[in-house]
Amino acid sequence: QNESDERALIKVDKGISISKDSLFLMNIRFRMQNRFGIRTESGEDLSIEQTDFRVRRLRLRFDGYVLNPRMQYYIQLGFSKADLDLESGGYAQPIRDAMIYYFFDKNFYVGFGQGKLPGNRERVVSSGNLQFADRSIANGVFTLDRDFGFFGYYTLPTKGRANYQLKGAINTGEGRNPSPGDGGLSYTTRFEYLPFGTFLNSGDYSEGDLEFEPRPKLSIGVTYNYNDEAVRARGQLGSSLYEARDLQVYIADAMFKYMGWAVMAEYFKRTTTDPFTHSDAGDIRVVWVGTGNNLHLSRMISRKSEL
Amino acid sequence: QNESDERALIKVDKGISISKDSLFLMNIRFRMQNRFGIRTESGEDLSIEQTDFRVRRLRLRFDGYVLNPRMQYYIQLGFSKADLDLESGGYAQPIRDAMIYYFFDKNFYVGFGQGKLPGNRERVVSSGNLQFADRSIANGVFTLDRDFGFFGYYTLPTKGRANYQLKGAINTGEGRNPSPGDGGLSYTTRFEYLPFGTFLNSGDYSEGDLEFEPRPKLSIGVTYNYNDEAVRARGQLGSSLYEARDLQVYIADAMFKYMGWAVMAEYFKRTTTDPFTHSDAGDIRVVWVGTGNNLHLSRMISRKSEL
Amino acid sequence: QNESDERALIKVDKGISISKDSLFLMNIRFRMQNRFGIRTESGEDLSIEQTDFRVRRLRLRFDGYVLNPRMQYYIQLGFSKADLDLESGGYAQPIRDAMIYYFFDKNFYVGFGQGKLPGNRERVVSSGNLQFADRSIANGVFTLDRDFGFFGYYTLPTKGRANYQLKGAINTGEGRNPSPGDGGLSYTTRFEYLPFGTFLNSGDYSEGDLEFEPRPKLSIGVTYNYNDEAVRARGQLGSSLYEARDLQVYIADAMFKYMGWAVMAEYFKRTTTDPFTHSDAGDIRVVWVGTGNNLHLSRMISRKSEL
Repeated sequence: QNESDERALIKVDKGISISKDSLFLMNIRFRMQNRFGIRTESGEDLSIEQTDFRVRRLRLRFDGYVLNPRMQYYIQLGFSKADLDLESGGYAQPIRDAMIYYFFDKNFYVGFGQGKLPGNRERVVSSGNLQFADRSIANGVFTLDRDFGFFGYYTLPTKGRANYQLKGAINTGEGRNPSPGDGGLSYTTRFEYLPFGTFLNSGDYSEGDLEFEPRPKLSIGVTYNYNDEAVRARGQLGSSLYEARDLQVYIADAMFKYMGWAVMAEYFKRTTTDPFTHSDAGDIRVVWVGTGNNLHLSRMISRKSEL
Repeated sequence: QNESDERALIKVDKGISISKDSLFLMNIRFRMQNRFGIRTESGEDLSIEQTDFRVRRLRLRFDGYVLNPRMQYYIQLGFSKADLDLESGGYAQPIRDAMIYYFFDKNFYVGFGQGKLPGNRERVVSSGNLQFADRSIANGVFTLDRDFGFFGYYTLPTKGRANYQLKGAINTGEGRNPSPGDGGLSYTTRFEYLPFGTFLNSGDYSEGDLEFEPRPKLSIGVTYNYNDEAVRARGQLGSSLYEARDLQVYIADAMFKYMGWAVMAEYFKRTTTDPFTHSDAGDIRVVWVGTGNNLHLSRMISRKSEL
Repeated sequence: QNESDERALIKVDKGISISKDSLFLMNIRFRMQNRFGIRTESGEDLSIEQTDFRVRRLRLRFDGYVLNPRMQYYIQLGFSKADLDLESGGYAQPIRDAMIYYFFDKNFYVGFGQGKLPGNRERVVSSGNLQFADRSIANGVFTLDRDFGFFGYYTLPTKGRANYQLKGAINTGEGRNPSPGDGGLSYTTRFEYLPFGTFLNSGDYSEGDLEFEPRPKLSIGVTYNYNDEAVRARGQLGSSLYEARDLQVYIADAMFKYMGWAVMAEYFKRTTTDPFTHSDAGDIRVVWVGTGNNLHLSRMISRKSEL
């Protein structure tokens, strides 16, 4: 089963998994990604200009349920320098996800805590299911990323094969590990339409058609986010603004898979009334407004190799 | 069994627990507390003035024994922004507890490492056994909190029902994760008297009478702490002082439980000869001296609900 | 079996160990070292001048294999203030080791990630197998410590009892958790010669002859490191230099064990063309060049006591 950042994994194939009389389950897993990059001076002069060797991701993940399989939790800690957000922020922030979910039934569950917003598809795909080592540049600029608050996930019951999903969240609007004391929340709604039914093994949230879908599958998603009195340049991410701004983010994305082919497309737009914020001293900081695109095509040759 | 911060838990009901031929036991547990707070502009204008959404506590706990059940350990790491002490201090401090205990017999054990001092009752109650999300303000101002050093716990053998406990500690006096190089230690002694015998399930160190004590139970405790050459404004906590001061802290507290009723009371006093410390430039920093109180009354309606 | 920092431990005697159909193994272990030090004013005046009480080391270790016992991993996180490198560096760095190894056969394996360089013997001995609480001063000044990159380990197949080992590494040259963007790599080669065969229980990488070698055993090692465009005063460690320098480090060391006696000797030399680096403002920072020695003699009285 694919690892999803929108709920706990109850069955895992790898990692430690311990349960007790259906009262308690804890899975312990980790993910490590080491990076080796090198840039030469030029195509002719192959001496090293720059290197990028480092532990890119090191994550420890706990999930499972307590007392009742309806009450699930999901905790993810990150320990690498990039995970700790040291490069942009000023202090260590090991907590990535800290969510509690309650499942009313298999079609409706709610969450409380810190987790990924129901934003663009590429962001919600777990880093273990990405095809490239990093996400796209457009994702970096426009993604809603993680935030703290309430989350809800609802699958509309239908008789046909088509599948309709509604997701929503109310959050601080300040991203991971916010400080107390901010006014102005963030409101996110997302709608997903899967006209040909659900993907095998949650394939709408993994890159690459690892399952070789025997019949075409499509998922179309649209997200609208309103961030009231945002104080960071990219909403949940970015440096501090001098003044608060109300941001609006529009996202449309789609995933198509068939017989080893996978196409993922995303469109982003962020707007605000006045992107320029001014300090008393006359300095200016800008909200990152504008539009972006991300297109991703892949072909799986066999179950073991990918083009 | 209640989780106590004064020894390792050998039997746990939840969490991963693995032992091997009575030679080794490791329990792994975590605790997560997410917070949702909101303040409106006024009683009439319900628009949001301020919010406090965040992961308040995220703890990972390892305890058990090695080689012999007499040799116990207890490690607790904290990962939330408040746990890391980033809001007051300047750097990340994930270690909360790191203790090794040796049990001579069930009435006498000693500890070495970093852990909670035998100070006021509310502080020693584990955060999982609190009734409110946070401890009292008086606790915040006067508590002895955690420190590094030697700890001893002794229960006087008696024939009657009454129970007498003696606790003591010699520590750095500088609190969690002290730097090497300080002179002046901290000395703590505590005496507890339980005239009607021990509480069910260690209830003298949990809030709320979850056990519905069929007979009245009382515990009275007094603590004296002498912190030689303290360098922080609240002894083990607080900002740096300009000059070292010898602090004295007096604590008296009591817990009473009967048939679902619980009363906890605490009295604090901190003194020093001259609370004002001066820098060469003429600035002043003050030791937090004075007295404080904390009273807590609760009634359990049934085993499942609490008023 | 001794814990080695040069490969994963597949069999452990202590700690949690979980495997599944030879497809997956995860060991979880921790190590805690609490320190108590005190210095009196003088031999006559025994009042306390300085104390050093603290959690010196608190490590969490995960190792094992995935899919196949040839594909091993080894992750070590450190949480104490010294482990996080807060005292010298400016930000928290919990990752100590994050390695993936591939074993071609028992004589040849390669690693990728962050780990200990094949430098001097005392540094590679795991802290759990040291005789003193800390390593030598010479080690602190000259060691190659940890770095990120590629590692290779090869034992030459021979017919006699003598054993020849070849180790090499290509790394960033900037030590633990380097930032991307540096030019100039570090190249390390090490050769070890064990004329009388391998030590019992990997005793060439533990201090103290815990195994009471019935026949004399000797290991001689030499290391050469070339750190191209190093930017720190001790290569992988130390404060930033104003200009990059090419460093060369030469190490020779030996371990001898016989009937409870153990002798470890190390020689170090670091050179560079011009150790002085200048800022534009005229300040100077110096590469730590020079030579150092470290000698260590011990006698085990019985299997349980050590002189």
